[in-house]
Amino acid sequence: EACAKVIDGKATAKQIREEIAIEVSRMMDAIGVVPGLAVILVGDRKDSATYVRNKKKACESVGIKSFEVNLPENTQEEEVLKFIEGFNEDPAVHGILVQLPLPSHMNEQSVLNAVSIEKDVDGFHPLNIGRLAMRGREPSFVPCTPKGCIELLHRYNIDIKGKRAVVIGRSNIVGMPAALLLQREDATITIVHSRTPNAEEITRQADIIIAAVGRANMVRGSWVKPGAVIIDVGINPVEDAKNSKGYKLVGDVCYDEACKVASAITPVPGGVGPMTIAMLLSNTLTSARRAHDFR
Amino acid sequence: EACAKVIDGKATAKQIREEIAIEVSRMMDAIGVVPGLAVILVGDRKDSATYVRNKKKACESVGIKSFEVNLPENTQEEEVLKFIEGFNEDPAVHGILVQLPLPSHMNEQSVLNAVSIEKDVDGFHPLNIGRLAMRGREPSFVPCTPKGCIELLHRYNIDIKGKRAVVIGRSNIVGMPAALLLQREDATITIVHSRTPNAEEITRQADIIIAAVGRANMVRGSWVKPGAVIIDVGINPVEDAKNSKGYKLVGDVCYDEACKVASAITPVPGGVGPMTIAMLLSNTLTSARRAHDFR
Ligand SMILES: NC(=O)C1=CN([C@@H]2O[C@H](COP(=O)(O)OP(=O)(O)OC[C@H]3O[C@@H](n4cnc5c(N)ncnc54)[C@H](OP(=O)(O)O)[C@@H]3O)[C@@H](O)[C@H]2O)C=CC1
Ligand SMILES: NC(=O)C1=CN([C@@H]2O[C@H](COP(=O)(O)OP(=O)(O)OC[C@H]3O[C@@H](n4cnc5c(N)ncnc54)[C@H](OP(=O)(O)O)[C@@H]3O)[C@@H](O)[C@H]2O)C=CC1
Repeated sequence: EACAKVIDGKATAKQIREEIAIEVSRMMDAIGVVPGLAVILVGDRKDSATYVRNKKKACESVGIKSFEVNLPENTQEEEVLKFIEGFNEDPAVHGILVQLPLPSHMNEQSVLNAVSIEKDVDGFHPLNIGRLAMRGREPSFVPCTPKGCIELLHRYNIDIKGKRAVVIGRSNIVGMPAALLLQREDATITIVHSRTPNAEEITRQADIIIAAVGRANMVRGSWVKPGAVIIDVGINPVEDAKNSKGYKLVGDVCYDEACKVASAITPVPGGVGPMTIAMLLSNTLTSARRAHDFR
Repeated sequence: EACAKVIDGKATAKQIREEIAIEVSRMMDAIGVVPGLAVILVGDRKDSATYVRNKKKACESVGIKSFEVNLPENTQEEEVLKFIEGFNEDPAVHGILVQLPLPSHMNEQSVLNAVSIEKDVDGFHPLNIGRLAMRGREPSFVPCTPKGCIELLHRYNIDIKGKRAVVIGRSNIVGMPAALLLQREDATITIVHSRTPNAEEITRQADIIIAAVGRANMVRGSWVKPGAVIIDVGINPVEDAKNSKGYKLVGDVCYDEACKVASAITPVPGGVGPMTIAMLLSNTLTSARRAHDFR
């Protein structure tokens, strides 16, 4: 039976981290600068704390210095803004990341807007998104998850130019920027969302599918054109009695069905997930290089 | 024989100008403020001069004050920037427009970036484009030509939500923002460009076609799904011995063929063209209202 090539995000991310570690030490040796990433966490959501811990560990593994601020749930917005201001001005900090979601009493937009565009390694600033959308402009930073998707396509030598690409999902942080990135590489993009009546039919036209919806196993085998390449961004917990935690994580794509039709596919976990953090490290390194004009 | 409804941009633009004229005089009566639009023209391109003259005339017709600066071809970029600075600070000016193209010795990006975002009635600033692309954000101004396309759909009660829309062309000023606008209204968008191998097949899936390419009669009748709605942005001169000028203007869509298949279509001339200037007036009025918090 046919079986798609597995696009191994875990191994690719590891390789990228190794490349970054080499560049970080080359920079340290040459000009004595260590890239720095500041992470601001407000509140005590367990999942957010886990993400922040993983980012910190990843920084350490490549020699990037991490700065962490943990603030209680009831912190005032001004307090958070003060920390951002401090990091904006601190030359040892090259990237600033505000872990989302923020507590509901804060205005997410004004907090994110406070991050200086030169240090917006998340790439979520509208100015970055605008440049991403425009021909002839270059964003300072590309959002990490969509950048990770494209990086996987590149490293697996998958052609993008002239291909039909369908992105399922249009969120600001994944679907929309992923589509813009594919278009920059001359794919013909279609963006499917919750108001699309015939998602299956459209998806079946794609040479490249990026699924970023948040619905377990939504994309069935019948949605996939034979030979298509699938990047599955979704991370969804589903019940699993066999697992000691009582659940397991699956993607937006029904892997067992799709892998029989596609030519290449990312697994969940171990696909896009590890790439996101690798791209964050990459953006932080880029920012440090830019700040010190180091090539 | 079936014949599409003609979407009359000329009549619609006239109606919009009348609506704007009423609002302008209401504003004048209530708070004594007259909206102002500044247009900067560098060089002596005949087509540019015509556009600027038309904009000025349109301003006059609705009671918007126009400010005009004409600079010679060999003007230094700094000189242009100085005028922009002046208009940025002038409270009588609510919109600033730099007629493109600029002479080749100028950096278009840095000139356009100098226009204050509050007066960027062209909507070309990357910050505006970014907000246009993002869910939950609102651009200060929407670029005039794509806004005119959507306004025509609205005024002709054409449903957008849930429809398949194909935009042919992805320029920063027409195609790309038109696609983003359609997506904001919950269409499922596909963007076709010069690297799309099967443009005809894709276009035939569309309920709504926006053509912004610049190739006379490219979209043939066979490209159009029966009942589709067509907005033709293209303006292309073709030889015409019967015309005293020796040429006539046609769109990107082969009108004679397409009007037999489509349910509605814009003519060229008299379709999108007149809407562009109407939207410029509308953006200028919006800007003046915003500056004076007048509803
Ligand atoms: N691997 C990683 O590192 C990351 C993984 N993720 C995962 O990716 C997934 C998407 O995340 P995110 O983009 O933040 O999610 P959002 O909830 O912000 O966006 C989901 C998108 O999917 C669309 N959608 C919802 N239902 C359907 C449907 N039935 N058919 C088609 N489209 C639909 C929505 O459409 P509409 O706009 O109309 O509402 C929306 O655009 C999640 O599982 C998340 O956990 C996210 C970030 C990082
Ligand atoms: N009515 C009005 O007020 C206005 C009318 N116009 C008219 O609209 C048209 C488009 O203008 P503008 O957007 O500025 O033009 P641009 O030249 O900037 O963009 C043209 C777009 O068409 C694409 N394209 C070129 N050839 C093909 C092809 N064979 N198949 C598919 N796509 C193709 C290009 O693709 P790629 O990106 O791959 O190069 C590009 O994205 C022109 O005729 C212009 O005169 C423009 C502005 C205002």
